[in-house]
Amino acid sequence: MKCKVLALLRSQQGPVSGEEISLQLGVSRTAVWKHIQTLKEEGYEIISQPGTGYLLKEVPDLLLPGELAYFLSDSIFGQNIEYYRTLQSTNEQAKAAADQGAPEGTLVVAESQEEGKGRLGRQWFSPEGSGIYATVVLRPPLKPEQAPGFTLMAAAALAQAVQQVTGMAPGIKWPNDLLLAGKKFCGILTEMKAEMDRIHYLVIGTGINVNMDPQLFPAEFRDTATSIKKELGQEVSRIRLLSAYLKSMETLYRIYLEQGLSPIIEEWKAWSITLGQSVTLTSGHEVFRGRAIDIAGNGGLVVLGDNGEQKIFHSGEVTLRNK
Amino acid sequence: MKCKVLALLRSQQGPVSGEEISLQLGVSRTAVWKHIQTLKEEGYEIISQPGTGYLLKEVPDLLLPGELAYFLSDSIFGQNIEYYRTLQSTNEQAKAAADQGAPEGTLVVAESQEEGKGRLGRQWFSPEGSGIYATVVLRPPLKPEQAPGFTLMAAAALAQAVQQVTGMAPGIKWPNDLLLAGKKFCGILTEMKAEMDRIHYLVIGTGINVNMDPQLFPAEFRDTATSIKKELGQEVSRIRLLSAYLKSMETLYRIYLEQGLSPIIEEWKAWSITLGQSVTLTSGHEVFRGRAIDIAGNGGLVVLGDNGEQKIFHSGEVTLRNK
Repeated sequence: MKCKVLALLRSQQGPVSGEEISLQLGVSRTAVWKHIQTLKEEGYEIISQPGTGYLLKEVPDLLLPGELAYFLSDSIFGQNIEYYRTLQSTNEQAKAAADQGAPEGTLVVAESQEEGKGRLGRQWFSPEGSGIYATVVLRPPLKPEQAPGFTLMAAAALAQAVQQVTGMAPGIKWPNDLLLAGKKFCGILTEMKAEMDRIHYLVIGTGINVNMDPQLFPAEFRDTATSIKKELGQEVSRIRLLSAYLKSMETLYRIYLEQGLSPIIEEWKAWSITLGQSVTLTSGHEVFRGRAIDIAGNGGLVVLGDNGEQKIFHSGEVTLRNK
Repeated sequence: MKCKVLALLRSQQGPVSGEEISLQLGVSRTAVWKHIQTLKEEGYEIISQPGTGYLLKEVPDLLLPGELAYFLSDSIFGQNIEYYRTLQSTNEQAKAAADQGAPEGTLVVAESQEEGKGRLGRQWFSPEGSGIYATVVLRPPLKPEQAPGFTLMAAAALAQAVQQVTGMAPGIKWPNDLLLAGKKFCGILTEMKAEMDRIHYLVIGTGINVNMDPQLFPAEFRDTATSIKKELGQEVSRIRLLSAYLKSMETLYRIYLEQGLSPIIEEWKAWSITLGQSVTLTSGHEVFRGRAIDIAGNGGLVVLGDNGEQKIFHSGEVTLRNK
């Protein structure tokens, strides 16, 4: 009902009286008043004047479920949203929700993370209000060896969303770092619970530096990280970016399930800044130098080594080398 | 201290007085009496006669941590044991324990399971007292694509243990069903939590039909399942079998981590009844007929199809065909 009150306020050009809201939605005026109070507490700026009624003046810059729902009304992803002002980690919360049976497409989102995680146990800087920290739960009827494809899928979905909302075309460094001007502004961490024959669930978490000032990053990230705001020169709506990402991901996910990984790899390649490059690939204790020449059918990176040996990597860290 | 009292009783040929136990272990006679009571409650048959003392007459046929510890004193696996009279599923409990930080080698064991799980969501018949339902937590510093190797490792370890304790040589049907006289008496279910770059933990659960009468199995298993007792013609000690399995697994695990999967595959092949056979492999919706010719370097089953095509399967169900 709160969302209906909000939707009604959104649809009006001018003020609307409590009586009219009450009539249109079939609830008491007291109930309307209470919902308005809740919306105000959430950060919605609603002007209420005796005689004229309520006017929605400004929506808060928060990733509130009611706001996301507005953009995701025709989507399956994001129909179930868990929203938090702060979390240890959206991936941890999403795994806990998935263990409890959260349906496919569940979105866990937080305004900040206390222990935001990157790949390989690294930290992800997650200050309040200026980034997107969000994790999606998927339950693909597939096998664990097919899981890496979802990481490529998520990177491609996010690249599409960034271009759609900002006009800038990001590059993807294999497997799933997104870069603008050669600096990283987004990371994706995919985790799964599985038996050898099937995936129980996947959680795909993303941290996006949207509107932060990279000068405020911890020193160790300052030279290699950037934000959308820094590169675009202006702020962008986190709500629009997150909802565009979910929509892109939903589309690519359906394509993956219906047609397999090959069209996802094609889409990923369109954003790649890794293929054709001289790279150093570090995987565990192994360091391998060569040229990244292709993506294998299962999503692995095909590297033609400087020593002439060709290898396929399914995990690891790519460094682009200057030629 | 309870375990020390038990060990002392075990070491004696005849009765030992409460006073002597009290002196040897440096605890009060009241404490000795209390530990004896607890042991009796757990099922140990201890005769106590005024004037002569305590005599351990019989140990219970239960998989008690104190009993397992006796056989596993020089092992790492099984140093941490969670014992339950009944559980929904030892794998579920082991995953919960691993989520809470349970160390590598933790053993979760139950006398019965209410919802014993097999591969692909199937049920595993788990009546009280006559089977082994046990799950081991592993934390290998490896990647998820290497997980299937642990399933082969567990099957080989169990085959070794069965031969050691019973003298009978079981056969392994790929990937990890153990058979005696062509019928299944053991299943292994490996599950994992992972990100794309590393395994967080693996749990390897096993259900073994040890001393049950297959005539009491549910009708749907009766024709295809057997038990060790049925094939051997006598009961075997579940404690000895479980501790032998843990020891074999610990050895193979160390070899795997130090030398890779190849020696594990060699060991697995020594027990294989799949290689060289005509098989039907069902994997998802795919049905593939051919001859199982080898195990690939990553643990997959190499099948030369009747149509001449050679494929490697990483998961799926093998049916041995009559030639």
